[in-house]
Amino acid sequence: MDRTIGLLGGGQLGQMLCEAANPLGIKVIILDAENSPAKQVNAKNEHINGSFVDEEKILELARKVDVLTVEIEHVNTHVLEKIATEGVEFVGQDGKKAIKTVEVQPSWKTIRTIQDKFLQKKHFIANGVSTVPSKEVESNPGALHAVGLEYGYPFMLKAKKDAYDGRGNFAVKFPHDIPEALEALKGRGLYAEKWANFTMELAVMVVKTEDGTSADGKATVAYPAVETIHEDSICKLVYLPPRRVSKKTQREAQALARKAVGSLWGKGVFGVEMFLMDTGALVVNEIAPRPHNSGHYTIEACPTFSQYKSQLLSILGLMPSFPDSTIPAMFPATIMLNILGGASKDSHKELMARAVATPNAALHMYGKESKPARKIGHITVVANSMSEGEHLIPPLIQLADNMRASRKNLPTSTISPSPTLIPQPLVAVTMGSDSDLPVLKPGLELLTTLGIPFHVTITSAHRTPLRMTEFASSAVANGFKVIIAAAGGAAHLPGMIAASTPLPVIGVPVKGSTLDGMDSLLSIVQMPRGVPVATVAINNSINAALLAARILGASDEVIREKLEKYASDMGEEVVGKAGRLEEVGFKAY
Amino acid sequence: MDRTIGLLGGGQLGQMLCEAANPLGIKVIILDAENSPAKQVNAKNEHINGSFVDEEKILELARKVDVLTVEIEHVNTHVLEKIATEGVEFVGQDGKKAIKTVEVQPSWKTIRTIQDKFLQKKHFIANGVSTVPSKEVESNPGALHAVGLEYGYPFMLKAKKDAYDGRGNFAVKFPHDIPEALEALKGRGLYAEKWANFTMELAVMVVKTEDGTSADGKATVAYPAVETIHEDSICKLVYLPPRRVSKKTQREAQALARKAVGSLWGKGVFGVEMFLMDTGALVVNEIAPRPHNSGHYTIEACPTFSQYKSQLLSILGLMPSFPDSTIPAMFPATIMLNILGGASKDSHKELMARAVATPNAALHMYGKESKPARKIGHITVVANSMSEGEHLIPPLIQLADNMRASRKNLPTSTISPSPTLIPQPLVAVTMGSDSDLPVLKPGLELLTTLGIPFHVTITSAHRTPLRMTEFASSAVANGFKVIIAAAGGAAHLPGMIAASTPLPVIGVPVKGSTLDGMDSLLSIVQMPRGVPVATVAINNSINAALLAARILGASDEVIREKLEKYASDMGEEVVGKAGRLEEVGFKAY
Repeated sequence: MDRTIGLLGGGQLGQMLCEAANPLGIKVIILDAENSPAKQVNAKNEHINGSFVDEEKILELARKVDVLTVEIEHVNTHVLEKIATEGVEFVGQDGKKAIKTVEVQPSWKTIRTIQDKFLQKKHFIANGVSTVPSKEVESNPGALHAVGLEYGYPFMLKAKKDAYDGRGNFAVKFPHDIPEALEALKGRGLYAEKWANFTMELAVMVVKTEDGTSADGKATVAYPAVETIHEDSICKLVYLPPRRVSKKTQREAQALARKAVGSLWGKGVFGVEMFLMDTGALVVNEIAPRPHNSGHYTIEACPTFSQYKSQLLSILGLMPSFPDSTIPAMFPATIMLNILGGASKDSHKELMARAVATPNAALHMYGKESKPARKIGHITVVANSMSEGEHLIPPLIQLADNMRASRKNLPTSTISPSPTLIPQPLVAVTMGSDSDLPVLKPGLELLTTLGIPFHVTITSAHRTPLRMTEFASSAVANGFKVIIAAAGGAAHLPGMIAASTPLPVIGVPVKGSTLDGMDSLLSIVQMPRGVPVATVAINNSINAALLAARILGASDEVIREKLEKYASDMGEEVVGKAGRLEEVGFKAY
Repeated sequence: MDRTIGLLGGGQLGQMLCEAANPLGIKVIILDAENSPAKQVNAKNEHINGSFVDEEKILELARKVDVLTVEIEHVNTHVLEKIATEGVEFVGQDGKKAIKTVEVQPSWKTIRTIQDKFLQKKHFIANGVSTVPSKEVESNPGALHAVGLEYGYPFMLKAKKDAYDGRGNFAVKFPHDIPEALEALKGRGLYAEKWANFTMELAVMVVKTEDGTSADGKATVAYPAVETIHEDSICKLVYLPPRRVSKKTQREAQALARKAVGSLWGKGVFGVEMFLMDTGALVVNEIAPRPHNSGHYTIEACPTFSQYKSQLLSILGLMPSFPDSTIPAMFPATIMLNILGGASKDSHKELMARAVATPNAALHMYGKESKPARKIGHITVVANSMSEGEHLIPPLIQLADNMRASRKNLPTSTISPSPTLIPQPLVAVTMGSDSDLPVLKPGLELLTTLGIPFHVTITSAHRTPLRMTEFASSAVANGFKVIIAAAGGAAHLPGMIAASTPLPVIGVPVKGSTLDGMDSLLSIVQMPRGVPVATVAINNSINAALLAARILGASDEVIREKLEKYASDMGEEVVGKAGRLEEVGFKAY
């Protein structure tokens, strides 16, 4: 931790890197223009003013540090290669020249491979990492028409180098777009890419902890998969977890990202952008060899291990190991919204004020002058569920949309007031027939009293078997935590629901006209091994509601406190009655 | 948010304030020595080098800013009073003198009241805030002997002003200590305080959001109560939540802290230190009118609303409102450990390295030169439970203890390796008699397979009624989330346990020698309204274990995924058997 890091580039990524480095006592020296964002938060060190592609300046920086790293991949890799392989010459205090060893992390080879997007693609293919088909193409109409014939339309025409945030890409929709495409990317090395029919863009931040490459992503650690939403080819929103994407796919995305990063050289943090195709397959789009916009959320969601801390510790060889090679998010849901400069210098002030007035939101301004569409900050909203997050974020998005509209001369919309949070129902209550409703009512009233949001419906095991199965199997995805099911007679409903969900199911036996409810009770309680139903007393929906509350209260202190109060009130009521009985005697009572 | 803040003092509190201000785009100008910690992370602004008690420097700062605030209370309040009431004179661009209005937050009146600890006590008493009895005392032996007669020994002798971190306090244990006490506090205004028999020190950070005073803490917002542990009169550890302190007492601490802060003037964040007396009563010890060591944990535990953000927003009048006037912690448990400088300049390096190697720990170094016992940094560990936190923290504490030992020339101890985490048992399993154990065994084996930690015991409703009640009523405090209780015959155990805990209780009816278990089933399931037992089939401990897993899985995705796998394996087994039956026919099967 006593080694000094030299940073090429001092933009917002470098700034947040310094914000992580300062409290760790790690010294970072920055090469970039005077007063660049990173320098604003790091006044301790002798930074270098200049360009991060200037060979002399890079050598000057190298002489001062032990490890060189980047916050942008558009750097001079030839200098980095020379420094990494030959060291850097300096004049010692004795006036003699000497050579100093300086590490470059991640490796210049990785940066060079990534700088050329077509070389990057070839690297993925050579390493068995799924990616979208692509081919090198000459910058002439004939070559592009040939691509059109092979890939069909639309296809993507891309510059190999210096392309980011959509710059350097051209979507060729029809053959007649070809001249415009060639004009837009004139004079640049090109490649063509098959059109990717993706349903969602995902991203995973991966930390590489060892220098060597591996085929299976060994010596890598992954953050969770996130959903990214782009607008005008710039990242706009990041959702953690990705919405309506199975856990299995999220894990596959982490595995693919780890495999891709494992194939590269050197240590550090990498942002892996992926497409989730309409076939369900995952392919890597591209990799950034540095902290990434899609990982900003880690500052709040992983409060002891952000992507910036991981970048620092991995390049210094200090990264601890994590169970399952994953760094978990500490919140069920996080949404990040970028702030892009508006039409005027102050267009973003209203959005900033709104973010500050939102208790669950963290605002990050980068100290950059606002210019239209420039990334000048971001907002991270943390929430206890995605539905809560999706209720908190719209006013912020709307303000961002209005900034975009005014900078593009589009009509703006009026900002709606803060949305009222519609609470996510936690308990699903269902019954075999509406004739069971009177039995359930006292329980529903108790849930209301306890302030536990619930959803009531009817699903008959025998009359609507498919509806019942669908209800049960989608209960987790619908955000329910507990199910209450009431049924009478040959009471199959609770057990059948329990057979189609991993959630706890509470069964309420309803007393029928014969057998005093014993038929219902035994039908519900005597489930075979493997499929439990939490059975309560016959007709006792109050106890079903209380049991649901106890289940929620096992992990929710607020609910547990309400239950404690309920129990003490109940006790007091009995004591009160006892007092009255003792006072007035059993005859007058 | 465009108003500039002027900060008197640039130590670590000012540094963390700037770390919060930068991303909010809030400009802070600092008055303190060159290269002080706060200035190291804030290179944007024209800070002032000098002392925060120097009138001229304070006026110079005031001319540059809109709001003045402090990170230390030992400032010149006479200048602050003048600035707040008369404004500050400046020479305009036209060469003419003019007066500029500058807010002082919190009010100079508050800072002045707090600077004099005896004035502070009188203020508490006048405002009905409980505190330890104290009285002004002359600096002579006769006066102190009189105090000894009145308060008894030991009692505390304290300097009214410039006292912090134990400096300025003297514990008078016997009459013969009096000369030494007078010598130690010679030349200072003194007061004596009755000895406080406290069992724990608590602290609450409170945000005051309006200028006026209130008797009931209106217009204040409280962070959670924490336990603070002092050593050598300096804060060493902070535990959130306080250990073995009831929720009720924690809420009372918040209410008392809000009342105390509500009685003061101006806006800002306040650290309220309290004693929890051996009588169970809470009394205020003292208040800091600024961010406080006991609130460092908020950086990680309240990741979108630290005490520093609250300080900035409250003094700018931008604090949003919070439900129940409380800012909740986002983690079940957080422990903060201060790093005090060791015997040599590098004594803390080992502790830093250990913190960095702990995934759940955040390290905060202040960029200060290390001197023995100087606060140079802190570590915050976040955990999913206090027991997890208490397993992670000991190696860090031990390293800190060794630093203390070497700086005090005490023997050091060898550092034990990182402790293996003993998982917190989540399920408590109990039975009426050891004869029920064979019935429970399959369920216990399943819990083991599912990787769910549990604790097994015997508690008979009829033979150990007290033990049973104690077991049930301490289950929440012991960290259990679900209870499984098995019993046969007149099976009272599950219901009686449910009567003494708010946790979900699963009842397993055990089949006896008569009635085929129907006696047990009805004794367990037919509970009266108000006290539910989740009853499973007779002798079916597998289903009890699965139900416990489903209850835990309602809020734990990892467990839920294991249950999904269990269900699909079970399905496959049946399909396999079906295949074999169809293949070999029913006779050969």
